[in-house]
Amino acid sequence: MRALVVHEFGGIDQVSLGEMPKPVPKAGEVLLEVRAVSVNFVDVVMISGVYQFKPARPFIPGKLPVGVVAAVGEGVTKFKPGDRALAQAEYSGFAEFVAMPENQCVPLPAAISFAEAAGMAIVYDTAWFALTDRGRIKPGDNVLILGATGGVGLAAIQLAKAFGAKVIATAGSADKCRACTKLGADRAVNYRSEDFVAVAKEATSGKGVDVTLDMVGGDYTERNIIAAAEEGRIVQIATLGGADVKFNISRLMMKRLTLTGSTLRPRTREIKAGFARALEAKVWPLLASGKVKVVIDSTFPLAKAADAHRRLEAGEHIGKIVLVV
Amino acid sequence: MRALVVHEFGGIDQVSLGEMPKPVPKAGEVLLEVRAVSVNFVDVVMISGVYQFKPARPFIPGKLPVGVVAAVGEGVTKFKPGDRALAQAEYSGFAEFVAMPENQCVPLPAAISFAEAAGMAIVYDTAWFALTDRGRIKPGDNVLILGATGGVGLAAIQLAKAFGAKVIATAGSADKCRACTKLGADRAVNYRSEDFVAVAKEATSGKGVDVTLDMVGGDYTERNIIAAAEEGRIVQIATLGGADVKFNISRLMMKRLTLTGSTLRPRTREIKAGFARALEAKVWPLLASGKVKVVIDSTFPLAKAADAHRRLEAGEHIGKIVLVV
Repeated sequence: MRALVVHEFGGIDQVSLGEMPKPVPKAGEVLLEVRAVSVNFVDVVMISGVYQFKPARPFIPGKLPVGVVAAVGEGVTKFKPGDRALAQAEYSGFAEFVAMPENQCVPLPAAISFAEAAGMAIVYDTAWFALTDRGRIKPGDNVLILGATGGVGLAAIQLAKAFGAKVIATAGSADKCRACTKLGADRAVNYRSEDFVAVAKEATSGKGVDVTLDMVGGDYTERNIIAAAEEGRIVQIATLGGADVKFNISRLMMKRLTLTGSTLRPRTREIKAGFARALEAKVWPLLASGKVKVVIDSTFPLAKAADAHRRLEAGEHIGKIVLVV
Repeated sequence: MRALVVHEFGGIDQVSLGEMPKPVPKAGEVLLEVRAVSVNFVDVVMISGVYQFKPARPFIPGKLPVGVVAAVGEGVTKFKPGDRALAQAEYSGFAEFVAMPENQCVPLPAAISFAEAAGMAIVYDTAWFALTDRGRIKPGDNVLILGATGGVGLAAIQLAKAFGAKVIATAGSADKCRACTKLGADRAVNYRSEDFVAVAKEATSGKGVDVTLDMVGGDYTERNIIAAAEEGRIVQIATLGGADVKFNISRLMMKRLTLTGSTLRPRTREIKAGFARALEAKVWPLLASGKVKVVIDSTFPLAKAADAHRRLEAGEHIGKIVLVV
């Protein structure tokens, strides 16, 4: 089958379309014919070899592909050929086929396209977990979303609004700010010209924000602490601005803040299966009813994966970038 | 009445016994004849004028005095003269009398002495809140208590054991380590000769600790993060080693840790009333049954408050230092 193959760790440019053996589903496994798969920062990090998890070479990157079940292994009961599904794969999705255990596959609702499903896969479960489990969001909360025009941020804006929260979102241009308010943000902050701490204080009558979702880190962490309300929860979900943080912990104590975070990668299969169920039960109905949308920035064919990653790295995108197989 | 009076902010040495008007209980207030009151770091900070809350001068320092009800104001129903009680006062306790609203007074159980009640007042509610509300302690958890031979630490060792947790405690001498194990710690670490991170990892088969109570801060914070288990909770309750912290937030994300903290000072009266009820319902039965103990390091007369504070600052004490009025 055709796939993007990494022979040695390095840059995305050296990863090219090649031939790999088509997987054969073992007992309990589902063989998925891939139709779409999103492009993520984690792919680049995994390809470069600096990620904490280093697959044996050669390997195929590509997280959470979606497609149509082509065949099933012995004992598979939940899927049959022709079903639409998402595979909870950490990598191996940039290919024509992928095999996964059936309990790590999630049926796709009829209402959404393959590109939408690929676009929502990572972002909605990340945003869902960050807002609920980590951020303990509740109706009426003030929620600050920093770096809001990536996929997770746009998903989080919509989910937070669906939870009845008030949303302040930051982005780096007027266009991106408009995308945030269009999706429901009550206030968009252009961080190049405005101080999000001042806006957060002003928009909450000095109280500060209850939940912060931060993809930036670095010197944002201390500012997040200053912008937080008493008992506020700050959830770190990426560190695009650097992982080294410093702050005065007295502020955190005085306001009884919670600084927490997560990455989805190191979870057990059981926890991922739980997310899959939550996604099915809680998020897909919102999607089916049109209450939340998947924002697709652009689609590329598999052979143009490097172009797709370059667009991601340039940071001009609004929403998810998806490869269509 | 006699009281320790602060006329101007400064050192503890300039605070001397003087005369102040005896308070008269207003409607809804209880007049307490003070019998004992503990000595705390917060007194020194408040006397020096660097605390976030600055009382008008002249004022009487002294937090959470205990004694006997001498008189009650109009409409008081829960107390009568002769009752033993604790007053949830932030200051004004280093005196012969103090007046407080009745809903900020807590009846004292018969089983404990005034010195014990004064000794347990701050420490048990701080330790209780830190372990339960902040640390979400559960049976079987591994709990690390850093700076364990202050009052809060010794209370936390005993409460954590009463919750069914396994306790690792750090202290700065062999004597202090013995005091920790005597009160139930499964493992005491002399931080002058052992690395608590290595001990915490080893004692938990590499898993790390579930709950950390830290009174130190500074460069401990990064070490706390390294010593934590997945989903671990790190609770900062003092910053004796400094409030400026720095660490790599990726570690916190990877293990989905929670870094939080509290000080009791800035809580509302309603929240304090809730603590008072929890103390009465949950902690005092443990104390009455002998399951937890109040460790009194030493007692001093009111006139020797400066000596008491010097002992506290020297850091040689094990348990609470109490002024007896």
